[in-house]
Amino acid sequence: MTFKEKVFHLIDDLSGKAINKGNKLVDNLLIILIVVNIISIILESFDSLNHQYYSIFYSIEVVTVVIFSIEYVLRLWTANLKYPTAGRVNARVRFMFSVMGLVDLLAVLPFYLPFLITIDLRFVRMLRLIRLLRIFKLKRYSKAFQLVSTVFEKKQSELTITAFVTIILLLFSSTLMYSVEHEAQPDKFPDIVSTLWWAVATLTTVGYGDVYPITIWGKLVAGVVAILGIGLVALPTGILSASFVEEIANSRKAKKELQHASPKGMKYCPHCGQPLPDINMTDDE
Amino acid sequence: MTFKEKVFHLIDDLSGKAINKGNKLVDNLLIILIVVNIISIILESFDSLNHQYYSIFYSIEVVTVVIFSIEYVLRLWTANLKYPTAGRVNARVRFMFSVMGLVDLLAVLPFYLPFLITIDLRFVRMLRLIRLLRIFKLKRYSKAFQLVSTVFEKKQSELTITAFVTIILLLFSSTLMYSVEHEAQPDKFPDIVSTLWWAVATLTTVGYGDVYPITIWGKLVAGVVAILGIGLVALPTGILSASFVEEIANSRKAKKELQHASPKGMKYCPHCGQPLPDINMTDDE
Amino acid sequence: MTFKEKVFHLIDDLSGKAINKGNKLVDNLLIILIVVNIISIILESFDSLNHQYYSIFYSIEVVTVVIFSIEYVLRLWTANLKYPTAGRVNARVRFMFSVMGLVDLLAVLPFYLPFLITIDLRFVRMLRLIRLLRIFKLKRYSKAFQLVSTVFEKKQSELTITAFVTIILLLFSSTLMYSVEHEAQPDKFPDIVSTLWWAVATLTTVGYGDVYPITIWGKLVAGVVAILGIGLVALPTGILSASFVEEIANSRKAKKELQHASPKGMKYCPHCGQPLPDINMTDDE
Amino acid sequence: MTFKEKVFHLIDDLSGKAINKGNKLVDNLLIILIVVNIISIILESFDSLNHQYYSIFYSIEVVTVVIFSIEYVLRLWTANLKYPTAGRVNARVRFMFSVMGLVDLLAVLPFYLPFLITIDLRFVRMLRLIRLLRIFKLKRYSKAFQLVSTVFEKKQSELTITAFVTIILLLFSSTLMYSVEHEAQPDKFPDIVSTLWWAVATLTTVGYGDVYPITIWGKLVAGVVAILGIGLVALPTGILSASFVEEIANSRKAKKELQHASPKGMKYCPHCGQPLPDINMTDDE
Repeated sequence: MTFKEKVFHLIDDLSGKAINKGNKLVDNLLIILIVVNIISIILESFDSLNHQYYSIFYSIEVVTVVIFSIEYVLRLWTANLKYPTAGRVNARVRFMFSVMGLVDLLAVLPFYLPFLITIDLRFVRMLRLIRLLRIFKLKRYSKAFQLVSTVFEKKQSELTITAFVTIILLLFSSTLMYSVEHEAQPDKFPDIVSTLWWAVATLTTVGYGDVYPITIWGKLVAGVVAILGIGLVALPTGILSASFVEEIANSRKAKKELQHASPKGMKYCPHCGQPLPDINMTDDE
Repeated sequence: MTFKEKVFHLIDDLSGKAINKGNKLVDNLLIILIVVNIISIILESFDSLNHQYYSIFYSIEVVTVVIFSIEYVLRLWTANLKYPTAGRVNARVRFMFSVMGLVDLLAVLPFYLPFLITIDLRFVRMLRLIRLLRIFKLKRYSKAFQLVSTVFEKKQSELTITAFVTIILLLFSSTLMYSVEHEAQPDKFPDIVSTLWWAVATLTTVGYGDVYPITIWGKLVAGVVAILGIGLVALPTGILSASFVEEIANSRKAKKELQHASPKGMKYCPHCGQPLPDINMTDDE
Repeated sequence: MTFKEKVFHLIDDLSGKAINKGNKLVDNLLIILIVVNIISIILESFDSLNHQYYSIFYSIEVVTVVIFSIEYVLRLWTANLKYPTAGRVNARVRFMFSVMGLVDLLAVLPFYLPFLITIDLRFVRMLRLIRLLRIFKLKRYSKAFQLVSTVFEKKQSELTITAFVTIILLLFSSTLMYSVEHEAQPDKFPDIVSTLWWAVATLTTVGYGDVYPITIWGKLVAGVVAILGIGLVALPTGILSASFVEEIANSRKAKKELQHASPKGMKYCPHCGQPLPDINMTDDE
Repeated sequence: MTFKEKVFHLIDDLSGKAINKGNKLVDNLLIILIVVNIISIILESFDSLNHQYYSIFYSIEVVTVVIFSIEYVLRLWTANLKYPTAGRVNARVRFMFSVMGLVDLLAVLPFYLPFLITIDLRFVRMLRLIRLLRIFKLKRYSKAFQLVSTVFEKKQSELTITAFVTIILLLFSSTLMYSVEHEAQPDKFPDIVSTLWWAVATLTTVGYGDVYPITIWGKLVAGVVAILGIGLVALPTGILSASFVEEIANSRKAKKELQHASPKGMKYCPHCGQPLPDINMTDDE
């Protein structure tokens, strides 16, 4: 195994199975780093803490960026091992434009940008927000995230269709509500786009209570929209949870089948797949 | 193929399968037109934009109405190809009173009405709202809308029953709440119909917070109604999402079976698509 | 058939199947009467309408009570046909204390009470509320109501258990919230029973916004209770909708099997149960 | 049967089946004691009742603590019968650190603590809250609680994963919302931890209305988070209710199979209860 291959096995886990102890260690260190980062982002938001411990937060940021930068460079370097069929340059381009490649880049880029080009401070603050994407680096290491992505991928067409229906429903109810309520409350329903805020709050049943119809027609529209629409907007929830239950049942079954590298002569129930403990077990004994 | 048949194939897609490139093109153009229209309706609602770009919005409206009018006339002309068994006049009447025929008519009618009869301006504004129906013209071209309508048609009896139960529940809880809360808050619960607004906001769990009981009895009624009623009002959501998941699984299976070349001589059930195991199976044996 | 039997068949429908035209007619007339009554109760709640059309509302009430009283007496008279195994007196007592018998009595009783005993006016107003029970007389005539009651009966144990869990959860979260929030907001959380109002509004996700925690501990309790508890409180909804879908599928299957008083030689699909239209249909033709 | 065994059978019910009348009686007495306790805690929270009937509440507390203390000592004494394989001391330690053992201890400890060590009064008040844990003693005696715990145990992995996803989602949306809304409403969104309150209220759709975004960006974030996130946060509800329905169906089936006398020689799977079709079925053929 060349040095490059060793490095590749350290940072990449080849379809979810950690190959050696080093890999496991690197994985865990990166997870800890990401968790420390998230905690640091949260604590930084407290004004008092930010003033007092500014240097600590800055150090964490620098260490994180250095480690993630090295990781990014190593992943770029070993890209031809990840995509063995692609050429040297091709493999690198392919990694750079893969979803995780972009997340990896965006996780460090905001730190370097102010050094490269002079940008105004407000924009820098917005850039720092991109650090949040580091949460998604967890996806690479966490089973839970992988399960959720599987569910989303499998039910893609269902979710696309319900998303489309939801958007149409939001637009339709906003336009309707704007037409009947604009004159009575021009400050709360100034245009259709602002009325979308009401539509979202109502159809998701959050109902903050900052915007609601006061005319009889507005209430009628809101009532009908709420009763008819909530079912449609809640469709993804139903679809997701059905798929989620199914997916976990599948992975459990797969695990069980792996375990049963069935010892010879063992019997299994044809209905539930569980091994039968006693060959001559009958219920009339 | 006569000219009339060519036109018919251009605007009608014969059970979901586009027959030629021209048809596909016409479909896409009409979808774009509807989307442009919806965007224009939304932007028009901004007062500032409406003043500045009034001529653009008006032009879009005129172009849309002209195209949709031509489409409507062509559909009327080719109606006897759509309903080949009906007579010439009969086919046209049948199209005019079909759901999509009415939507097509209502999508253009509000534009012509003010020219035909003198009506006051406030009514015209309400008429313009009917333009929103153009969204439903999308139904003809969009798979998502077709799926949703299938689900609604198949679960019609379930939805009717739950709708009936919902209405009874709304009336019942409104009457109850009116009786116990009217005296304490006569301005918020002036009559049973107004109390319906509270019932809808509570049973859909939106809970804007503009109307809520303040007496001990009112809170008791609200609590019991909320805990018992929410389950009933949420029934359609459960029914819809179960049916939705099922319907997509069906269409996926149908697609897969179409792709797999069927083994010779094998018979399939025309209803459920499952292979039939026994040729001579009858139920009178 | 004796006169008594004729009367019995007119007012009772013997397990859901109307036996003659007269029965159907009586059923429909009673449904119309109940609907008119509900509308009258709703309209009566408008002060202006009540002053102006008081005599109409009163007439409707008198006519309703007279008809329902006659119905009650007839049901009492024919009770021995309904419970043929019970004795004459026994059958009547059994009807009087059956659920529908009590509803029938309570639907007319409030009208007579003020004549029989002198009671103060406020109590009379409350009594008039019992008229609402007339809605449940619809249960006897409506399929939708029958379906809902079947679902509730079949899932009785599930619903009892979730109701018990819900009550414990409400008490537990109220006590917790009272402990942490009472001192900060003694007017909104004066005691545990009043705090139940907050618990109901939160766990049903209605969230009117009239009562919410403001201390850090209160918010923590509310957050944890909301995230953990909503799933439990929503359990009945899931159970009801699963059972509802199942029940309708059952009744549809039963109907289908009734229709297939299967014509000889007809074939059915062994998978979906649908009749096969063509004996020699194969997909390789 | 020794005296110790008799005592053990009185207070412990050996896998849900009450063995003798005494056991049933002790169970019911303890349930009544817990219910009286809960009612007393609730009534105590009313200031007026607490002043007037303080001695009654205190008596109930003392009686409860005495009985529960005796129960705890007896359980400790008979622990070696509960865990027959463990040694005398070992069995007692095992009971003390079991979940129910800790609940039993915590149910009485707060009463004794002030006698043992001098602690300030505010802390005592907080300690009294632990009395609430007595509700969980009901778990030992109630079928409903046992069912709920079974469901939670079986779906542990599903619930862990969704809990993890929920926490990430709450953190992610809080950070995002803090970034866009902090400047406009520094009092309502002072830091990321405080913004969690908004995130919980929104993603559970409670929506009290005390905190909501007012800027266009804040509303956009809230809208997207609500539409995308509610489905994920509602996942546990779907999972729980599916599992709940399943679990009750299982227990019902198990009961039915117990009742039906099994035909001679028939074999059943010990895991799923289905009859086994083939005696010599092995998986190594």
